[in-house]
Amino acid sequence: MRAGKNRQWLLAERPVDRPVKLSDFRLHEVPIPEPKDGEFVVRVLYASLAPVMRFYMLDGAGIEKPLNIGDVMRGRGVGQIVASRHPDFKEGEIVQGKMGWQEYAVSDGSPYWMMYKVRQRLVPVSTALGILGMTGFTAYFGLFDIGKPRATDTVLVSGAAGGVGSSVAQLAKTVGCRVVGIAGSEDKCRMLVEKLGYDAAINYKTDDIGAKIDALCPNGIDVFFDNVGGPILDQALARINKYARVVACGGISQYIAGSTEPYPLRNAYRIGRQNALMQGFLIYDYEPRFPEAERTMAQWVKEGRLTYQEDILEGIERMPEALIRLYDGKNRGKQLVRISADPF
Amino acid sequence: MRAGKNRQWLLAERPVDRPVKLSDFRLHEVPIPEPKDGEFVVRVLYASLAPVMRFYMLDGAGIEKPLNIGDVMRGRGVGQIVASRHPDFKEGEIVQGKMGWQEYAVSDGSPYWMMYKVRQRLVPVSTALGILGMTGFTAYFGLFDIGKPRATDTVLVSGAAGGVGSSVAQLAKTVGCRVVGIAGSEDKCRMLVEKLGYDAAINYKTDDIGAKIDALCPNGIDVFFDNVGGPILDQALARINKYARVVACGGISQYIAGSTEPYPLRNAYRIGRQNALMQGFLIYDYEPRFPEAERTMAQWVKEGRLTYQEDILEGIERMPEALIRLYDGKNRGKQLVRISADPF
Repeated sequence: MRAGKNRQWLLAERPVDRPVKLSDFRLHEVPIPEPKDGEFVVRVLYASLAPVMRFYMLDGAGIEKPLNIGDVMRGRGVGQIVASRHPDFKEGEIVQGKMGWQEYAVSDGSPYWMMYKVRQRLVPVSTALGILGMTGFTAYFGLFDIGKPRATDTVLVSGAAGGVGSSVAQLAKTVGCRVVGIAGSEDKCRMLVEKLGYDAAINYKTDDIGAKIDALCPNGIDVFFDNVGGPILDQALARINKYARVVACGGISQYIAGSTEPYPLRNAYRIGRQNALMQGFLIYDYEPRFPEAERTMAQWVKEGRLTYQEDILEGIERMPEALIRLYDGKNRGKQLVRISADPF
Repeated sequence: MRAGKNRQWLLAERPVDRPVKLSDFRLHEVPIPEPKDGEFVVRVLYASLAPVMRFYMLDGAGIEKPLNIGDVMRGRGVGQIVASRHPDFKEGEIVQGKMGWQEYAVSDGSPYWMMYKVRQRLVPVSTALGILGMTGFTAYFGLFDIGKPRATDTVLVSGAAGGVGSSVAQLAKTVGCRVVGIAGSEDKCRMLVEKLGYDAAINYKTDDIGAKIDALCPNGIDVFFDNVGGPILDQALARINKYARVVACGGISQYIAGSTEPYPLRNAYRIGRQNALMQGFLIYDYEPRFPEAERTMAQWVKEGRLTYQEDILEGIERMPEALIRLYDGKNRGKQLVRISADPF
């Protein structure tokens, strides 16, 4: 149907007990796939890089099924459907999902592929891998559906400089809240206030967290958007207001340093005492409402109320380099690679 | 308006550093009150006794304002309005609320008095002080609004033999759940299974709680109705299913024995991990829906699907004795005193 080659990156070596290096990957060419009945082919526009990818490269890391040597590298992307024999996915539509490190992906649209349509055309479709994708949707549904912020509320956010946390303040500002962020360096704290819409920031590595929360949240905490768990969560729980909402979004540091024991929370009893709520969620359960989140946030991006930062390298050749940038901390914002020209 | 006397019990002595005794109270007579503009007078039918009353008798115990020597003893009751100059409370209506230890109470119906109308006439109005009052409503809204049980769910209840817990199993059975209760004696555990609708019971004083939960809840815990907090809550949290709901209703034992430190919960992080929810609530926030709970549960009582136990002494003279029975553990079910003949 379509002449030409599909370049793809294969796993060549596992980075066992060492950092990822360029020679762990091998660029390979195959023909562009043809869709079988019930399948469609996507031309990848942007590919997303994520720290979890090193674990995909190892054996038996417990995160999805491990890749074999010679497999196409796993990863998410956004692309345009260029051929389809699937009733629900039409040629020309934009989708995001598991596309792998390659120029053309084939999928049957079943749940494994997590193929979601990108409907908005207000802002670049690369946003479907960040602010208008799972990361932004996690901030949106966590904050609005569980956090339910009101204009007079104080919202505290941990992991505030991360992918999710960096959107939460701007979303909370659309309601009018006071928003305070917690991050792990002076640089990040400055960014929270200067670029990400936070009213104030706490450096958990150098500040007395509890005292600083008291100082910066003088009316207590109405919404705690928690991306880290552990001792920071415990300090926040000690300061929640009546009817507070705790969005249990992540728990990176819920383990005691150097231990596999979960951190014991002395203040979790305050959920009941304060008639409060603490809730976790799975972002994919909100799939029926993804279009709402996309439409709303695309408008806010367009209006400049919601900003985001992308770090885009050009060309599939640079995929391994882009991944290594993450581990070196060189990326500024969401790390992407442009695989094909954006048609919009 | 109404000739006759209003007998009332006054606080005569504070039971400091000792149990309550009969001579702590003095029976007194005053004229039956007349309602001023905006007030109404209630003839008390039943008065409720509660362990908290000893604290009312002490000075500065931090529970509401302390009583002075010579004050009418504080307590809740159910009664009939016999005179009214209040637009919202009509003569003949039945109300429950703060009535004190007396035959006639006067109120302006303001929030302090917590006067709620008793609308059902299917079962005795004494139930307004238990199963069809705040105790039963706490079980009803906690279970149905926060716990949201489905027919295939396993519901675990701590403090299962208490006022609230003793209704939860029967309510959960209306949906069809498997219900397991936790209590502190073999007698109570037997009662849970034989009388209160529980499928199985755990004695937290003699059983290995975690192992017993594993054995009796082989499909995990979907709803945990928690009346106690502390280590039992932590054992339950370790075993909650995906999307579980934890009703944070009470926390009697959330403190470490002999300490004022709250018990550190090692498994609270599982709320987030399991996409679960933990929520506290204030029963008075459900006031607009009290009629729904009363109507529904009155029907279930009438049909025998919901049972309750009352221990009723006859005559206002026996109020002090009724209170002391509580501290001696002599009561069987909700301790009440009949103050006037039930008109229904």
